[in-house]
Amino acid sequence: MDLKMTVEELNSYVAEIFPQVSDFYTIEKLDKNFLRVKYMPTERDVRPGGSVSGPTLFALADISTFMALLAMIGPVHLAVTTSCSIDFLRKPRAEEILAAECRVLKIGRVLAVSDVLVFSGHIREPVARASLTYSIPPGKAREFE
Amino acid sequence: MDLKMTVEELNSYVAEIFPQVSDFYTIEKLDKNFLRVKYMPTERDVRPGGSVSGPTLFALADISTFMALLAMIGPVHLAVTTSCSIDFLRKPRAEEILAAECRVLKIGRVLAVSDVLVFSGHIREPVARASLTYSIPPGKAREFE
Amino acid sequence: MDLKMTVEELNSYVAEIFPQVSDFYTIEKLDKNFLRVKYMPTERDVRPGGSVSGPTLFALADISTFMALLAMIGPVHLAVTTSCSIDFLRKPRAEEILAAECRVLKIGRVLAVSDVLVFSGHIREPVARASLTYSIPPGKAREFE
Amino acid sequence: MDLKMTVEELNSYVAEIFPQVSDFYTIEKLDKNFLRVKYMPTERDVRPGGSVSGPTLFALADISTFMALLAMIGPVHLAVTTSCSIDFLRKPRAEEILAAECRVLKIGRVLAVSDVLVFSGHIREPVARASLTYSIPPGKAREFE
Repeated sequence: MDLKMTVEELNSYVAEIFPQVSDFYTIEKLDKNFLRVKYMPTERDVRPGGSVSGPTLFALADISTFMALLAMIGPVHLAVTTSCSIDFLRKPRAEEILAAECRVLKIGRVLAVSDVLVFSGHIREPVARASLTYSIPPGKAREFE
Repeated sequence: MDLKMTVEELNSYVAEIFPQVSDFYTIEKLDKNFLRVKYMPTERDVRPGGSVSGPTLFALADISTFMALLAMIGPVHLAVTTSCSIDFLRKPRAEEILAAECRVLKIGRVLAVSDVLVFSGHIREPVARASLTYSIPPGKAREFE
Repeated sequence: MDLKMTVEELNSYVAEIFPQVSDFYTIEKLDKNFLRVKYMPTERDVRPGGSVSGPTLFALADISTFMALLAMIGPVHLAVTTSCSIDFLRKPRAEEILAAECRVLKIGRVLAVSDVLVFSGHIREPVARASLTYSIPPGKAREFE
Repeated sequence: MDLKMTVEELNSYVAEIFPQVSDFYTIEKLDKNFLRVKYMPTERDVRPGGSVSGPTLFALADISTFMALLAMIGPVHLAVTTSCSIDFLRKPRAEEILAAECRVLKIGRVLAVSDVLVFSGHIREPVARASLTYSIPPGKAREFE
């Protein structure tokens, strides 16, 4: 399956349907089954002790998957997250940028599954790992089975 | 194991360590191994189509567990989420209050595990199900094994 | 949604399609959205220290969900497990019978989700907690949405 | 952290503590934070339609992590699985060998986390993805934090 959108098309589409999101997330790399996106934590994301909140990491993993699926199956803004399993591995640093690397493991007739690693600043090892399942609206991805 | 805190003590403690949180979450019920907490979605939590964002549901499940553990093992603000598995079951309604019911399944020497159902307004069936694992600082919960 | 099968019909059906399974699992209770099934560990299931293997607990949680869904949507032997999240909470006893209590949280158009607690002998608290997602063949459960 | 055991030492150790396991699993590759192990499904593992059972895939993912941790922290046969999240992505083939590739994402003071992909025969894409958390006995892995 080839990519259906370029980084630019993806950015425009996300800006249109999720204006509140597009200002904060920067797509860095897009490849077949792979997307890397960066996010700079804001004050709201910070937790006591200079860490970043779990929901912030979850949101980043979720958005990386949403964007990767968009790029692969084309504009399907009704694709929804049906489940997520996330492990918090290390303490992210509040003042450093986060990067999520999303690998798409499957795009089936009704479900898509990804695996995401989240990194913080220059820490070499991931601060979180997540896998997400998305439900794909009928008729949209049938060709990719 | 008896409860270590009343709803009032819990509210004061959370207001002190998480002032940004305490204004929005209302503990409704607290019992041995059980806590119910409510949260009214704000504009930021809303998604296109009148739904509530996944990170909002995740945050509510996480906070319900954090509060339930606090009530059971006493003030341990270093307890941290190590993992979460969450299923999104139905569409919550943006304009209705959310309620999380947290059941504590285990408080061990180093780990605690909960099971959470999230409800939206008057929909009888849960909109999400989550299980969370918390890591407990050494020496804190040893007595409960 | 009413039950589509009685305990007897469910037992016969499972005996027919999974003969290797039906000798070992005993359905104890069946209700709307609820099923309890028992399993006596065999030598193969035992681990050093008198415990029961993780795969045995996983298999029991999986089968409890499979049976509960069968009872609710009728014979659909193509329903398949798409994901499972399981927490091992306490050490089961090798010489005691296991019981899984499965609650069906959702039966949607394409997915069904359950929550399972596994008990061992007379230990009052669960030895494991699992949630499972099943994919339902198209056309089968559409009426239950 | 350097490896504490060679493939040969790991094989001997597993043969000693898990004789029922060592005949069926073949370690193919061992590296820092990485292990690949193969398993040929037996008649018991097969499901109607020529597939392999979920518990078989779960067991393989679990054993790959157990072996990888042994190789990295040395003989710690009390390390136990505390949780697993697994996605079943494609149908494995009953008559083909399975291979699990385990990446160790974290070895902390009390917890270790892995990410596993399971492959079947010559299918290029994974048939399952799993992440596992192990609890490490106190005093064993403190040096690796």
